[in-house]
Amino acid sequence: MRQTEWRLAPLDEARERFLREVTFSPSVETVPVRKAHDRVTAKPVVARRSVPEWPLAAMDGVAVRAEMTAQATPDKPVQLSLGREAVWIDTGDPLPDFADAVIPVEQIGVVDEKRVQIFRPVPSWKHVRMAGEDVCAGEMILPSCHRIRPIDLGVMLASGVEEVSVWRLPRVGVIPTGSELVMPGQAPERGQIVESNGTVISGYLREWGAVPDYRGIVPDEPERLIQAVQSAVKKCDMVVLNAGSSAGSEDYTVSVIQKLGRVLQHGVATRPGKPVILGIVEGKPVVGLPGYPVSAYLGLQWFVRPLIEKWFGTPIGKANEVRVRLGADVAVKTGAEDFVRVAVGEVRGEWVAYPLAKGAGVASSLSRADGWLRVPIDHSGWKAGTCVSVEMIHPRGSWENRLLVAGETDVGLDVLADRISSHISGFTLLPLPMGREEAWHALREGRCHLVMSAGDMSGTEEAEANEASWVCIHGWRRVRGWMMQPDSGHRSIGEWLRQGAQLLVHPRGTRSRQWLEAQWSDWGIGPQDLRGGYRVAANDRQIAAAIAVGSADIGIGCPAVAREFGLLFVPAWEEEVQFVAPRDWLRSPMGRLLVDVLQSRSFRMRLEMSGGYRCGKSGEMIGSL
Amino acid sequence: MRQTEWRLAPLDEARERFLREVTFSPSVETVPVRKAHDRVTAKPVVARRSVPEWPLAAMDGVAVRAEMTAQATPDKPVQLSLGREAVWIDTGDPLPDFADAVIPVEQIGVVDEKRVQIFRPVPSWKHVRMAGEDVCAGEMILPSCHRIRPIDLGVMLASGVEEVSVWRLPRVGVIPTGSELVMPGQAPERGQIVESNGTVISGYLREWGAVPDYRGIVPDEPERLIQAVQSAVKKCDMVVLNAGSSAGSEDYTVSVIQKLGRVLQHGVATRPGKPVILGIVEGKPVVGLPGYPVSAYLGLQWFVRPLIEKWFGTPIGKANEVRVRLGADVAVKTGAEDFVRVAVGEVRGEWVAYPLAKGAGVASSLSRADGWLRVPIDHSGWKAGTCVSVEMIHPRGSWENRLLVAGETDVGLDVLADRISSHISGFTLLPLPMGREEAWHALREGRCHLVMSAGDMSGTEEAEANEASWVCIHGWRRVRGWMMQPDSGHRSIGEWLRQGAQLLVHPRGTRSRQWLEAQWSDWGIGPQDLRGGYRVAANDRQIAAAIAVGSADIGIGCPAVAREFGLLFVPAWEEEVQFVAPRDWLRSPMGRLLVDVLQSRSFRMRLEMSGGYRCGKSGEMIGSL
Repeated sequence: MRQTEWRLAPLDEARERFLREVTFSPSVETVPVRKAHDRVTAKPVVARRSVPEWPLAAMDGVAVRAEMTAQATPDKPVQLSLGREAVWIDTGDPLPDFADAVIPVEQIGVVDEKRVQIFRPVPSWKHVRMAGEDVCAGEMILPSCHRIRPIDLGVMLASGVEEVSVWRLPRVGVIPTGSELVMPGQAPERGQIVESNGTVISGYLREWGAVPDYRGIVPDEPERLIQAVQSAVKKCDMVVLNAGSSAGSEDYTVSVIQKLGRVLQHGVATRPGKPVILGIVEGKPVVGLPGYPVSAYLGLQWFVRPLIEKWFGTPIGKANEVRVRLGADVAVKTGAEDFVRVAVGEVRGEWVAYPLAKGAGVASSLSRADGWLRVPIDHSGWKAGTCVSVEMIHPRGSWENRLLVAGETDVGLDVLADRISSHISGFTLLPLPMGREEAWHALREGRCHLVMSAGDMSGTEEAEANEASWVCIHGWRRVRGWMMQPDSGHRSIGEWLRQGAQLLVHPRGTRSRQWLEAQWSDWGIGPQDLRGGYRVAANDRQIAAAIAVGSADIGIGCPAVAREFGLLFVPAWEEEVQFVAPRDWLRSPMGRLLVDVLQSRSFRMRLEMSGGYRCGKSGEMIGSL
Repeated sequence: MRQTEWRLAPLDEARERFLREVTFSPSVETVPVRKAHDRVTAKPVVARRSVPEWPLAAMDGVAVRAEMTAQATPDKPVQLSLGREAVWIDTGDPLPDFADAVIPVEQIGVVDEKRVQIFRPVPSWKHVRMAGEDVCAGEMILPSCHRIRPIDLGVMLASGVEEVSVWRLPRVGVIPTGSELVMPGQAPERGQIVESNGTVISGYLREWGAVPDYRGIVPDEPERLIQAVQSAVKKCDMVVLNAGSSAGSEDYTVSVIQKLGRVLQHGVATRPGKPVILGIVEGKPVVGLPGYPVSAYLGLQWFVRPLIEKWFGTPIGKANEVRVRLGADVAVKTGAEDFVRVAVGEVRGEWVAYPLAKGAGVASSLSRADGWLRVPIDHSGWKAGTCVSVEMIHPRGSWENRLLVAGETDVGLDVLADRISSHISGFTLLPLPMGREEAWHALREGRCHLVMSAGDMSGTEEAEANEASWVCIHGWRRVRGWMMQPDSGHRSIGEWLRQGAQLLVHPRGTRSRQWLEAQWSDWGIGPQDLRGGYRVAANDRQIAAAIAVGSADIGIGCPAVAREFGLLFVPAWEEEVQFVAPRDWLRSPMGRLLVDVLQSRSFRMRLEMSGGYRCGKSGEMIGSL
């Protein structure tokens, strides 16, 4: 059953061919206008009544017959008797039969309860909303294939339309497949995975106006898969399978679709998202999505969303493209179109995009992403600072007030991020983990708002900060040390490493890596003496997670994280964490917010309670650099 | 009760002050993750499990212990026995306990059922997804005040989060006020209006994540209004009143809010949208919106939407701003900030925006609008061709494939628009009614795609078309004539006009107006001889609507519209309607679509059936110009 042959098609070509082969003939439903929000019109909607239906006063004032005012002058005003010749009228009131004009209240002289004076002539139909001014009976107020918004409901109701013909909602079968899947709520054992893609897929389908039909987990058994697809195709208008779309030994999806219908395409030349299956079974489109969350998400956007657009005959809305400057290098292999997740922030009025983690399995980075950077099939990427176009997932508001913090990682940054979000609505913090030098460089070039650094500053750093008029703010003090399994204590760490302990280290340029490198000489060893070698992990938590499951023995971290993972923590040193930012930025709303939050009781309490942190001077300016 | 004093505040100032005065302390609810889509987190969400929880294979292949492959070379491959030393594994499977690396299937030699060969050494943890690669237990996966999207549901479920703390949804009381209102479904009598704003307001509230509480129509009686506001304030978190917010004799809203609480602001310096009331009753915000649909819509966006953003602590999404070229002049009075509805289309790769009808009562133009052009308080507008910024209401897709047709208006254009929308998903047609010369000018300057013109072309027009390489396509033949009440027949029209019949004419530069002007000399009269004078209406339907309710006696139109309004139609002439477009545009997808639809049976049948149209040559190219 192992298939290693792929005939990959370019994404756009695969999609076009698929959409051409699919035909829908959705039926039409009649729904009351009040329930028509977000439905899509199947026929043009025609006004049944004009709006307004009768001439109405367009001002507050007095309704008159225009020809009776023809002789009026300021010196010889015309007197009209209220009731027969003139009537007080409010904006929106229907004109009395005798009247054909309105004179605004400011231009009226009140003689007594029965009479008013008019000082100049008014032309017919002045200050009158004519019948049909808004909508004329018989006029098309909505075309077919129009997604109905609240304002459209108002226009329909006002013009006498009580019911509207809309396309039936498409029913989309969602079949999660895989013997390793368990339903959310069940605790997965080793080797099991919680089925979460089905919930994500159903959520997007609902957003796009389809009705998801979640058909339950099907194990990797061809017979049961065949049954599941057959019954889904019978009940639904289209079907999504997830996963089994690749070429592993238990990837049956292709053969099942082939058996029941036709496979139009297996595999597209993209990274991630390659193992997609596009098929048709009994005239209905069947899409096999990969199992990795990011690939599943992309496949859904690329192939299922346009199916729903085709069903309704109207686009769901196109992603906005914005020009951004890259905050970091983007380097990819050629041979496939790369889709790189990016997070966006605004620095000095310019938009900066940072690439996020690349793995197709890293769903959390998708949750953090603002948009996609597409790298063409024959292109290998761009250097930091280059201007590129990004397709945005999110509306503008969500990335405009985002604090970009480059440099060291620390658990304290999570607490700071949360406090910032709760302090002022809409502000968020994006940590940009990078080496010390790189972070200073980013600040220099305006690719981040501030740098977080730990330990003492070098002389060169101080000089540069002074010259650039940057200031330094106390963040917090933190304890650092070794994390290991509780039963691994009571020996010299240097000795243990020499004997083959598997070490995880922080990335180059971080404070923890620098400390470790200084440590080698104290221990009289070098990296070459480590029998177990060493690997790099991104941060304290990833190191602790690996130690906790036995994929590594030891690494540097902090007491809070060690405790979370049930690890032993051996303190090694304590150090100051500071923020460096341009002086004038600190006066901006974002800068003031940062200092306010750092100084706030709630932030300090929360951070100190997590263990290993001291916030005595948080938010204080460090005198001079 | 009449108040004519306004102390208008600038919009931004009024909003800021209002938001500062309002405080919310929403309670927190715990909901299962599966029901959390579109809810807003009240606390940071922390992963309970790492993802993956154990090391997993990142490729299809064989799981091995790396050190056992150390001696492998292509010449002297290492043999591993399946089961104890090597295990076939699929992407996503957990690594067996003994293994710490995966060798991809392409690099494996199969010796027999029990043994495989390895040709080169593999380092530890190669092709392995480490525990915590995606999410580490204890990591913050969502900050507080984050609106939960489908992808977030996936990250939560995968990392063992089953329940999430979210803000309670705000309940917003919606009180429609006005003795003239009747519920949708009831036929309004003269002087009554169908209550449609409440449905629109409720729809937007729902879109923004609030729960609308529609509290029924309240007549213009102060006592009943007081009761309604009191009970709404008790049950809801905020209250919207509509209307009674102006200063007419029955506008009680201000005095009611004043009596029950505080009025912070009455009136903002905008056009439309001026008569807004911002108040606080028992600590809860109460907003009085104007009755005109467009003003009500704007007030809702300006003041209620930010209240909901404040409640949740997160923006709903900011409008996109785009730079567009104005397709027509925008002229406004100074003294208020003007909000001009515009429709946008793309011509020759550039975005062009056309201002739509201005009246606050013209809700249909809001339904047709793509965005808002804000004209500052002290500014009087711009000339056609100027580049301006527009705040878009709609995502890009909806205006990109829009056919801009300048020139004559005709019922046939409605039919064409509908057929175009149904023919290819996402294409729409925007008619731009303007005089003949103006339309040619717009085509010349690339502000529209094509011109619709009626009757014969002038020599100058032909010469220009030839020189610019424009082509001319048959649209249809149409019958034109006089529309009037059925009982007004049997007299000479010239005579009737001289005797005082009220005449409605089409705008200057249209074919109907030109025909009429040529007619005067035949009748031996001029506009100055019309005792009833004449007024301008935009198109056949508006003329018919006015005649139908008795606001005018006679006007030019077509048989289809006359029939719709039950009017008598007296044919006067027949003429050709043509489209003029650049030759190369006709080869674009949009151009081909136009010709296809014009030639289609469904278009011709629909248009001919409406009466007074002949489509024998629709879509044919007119030989030479």
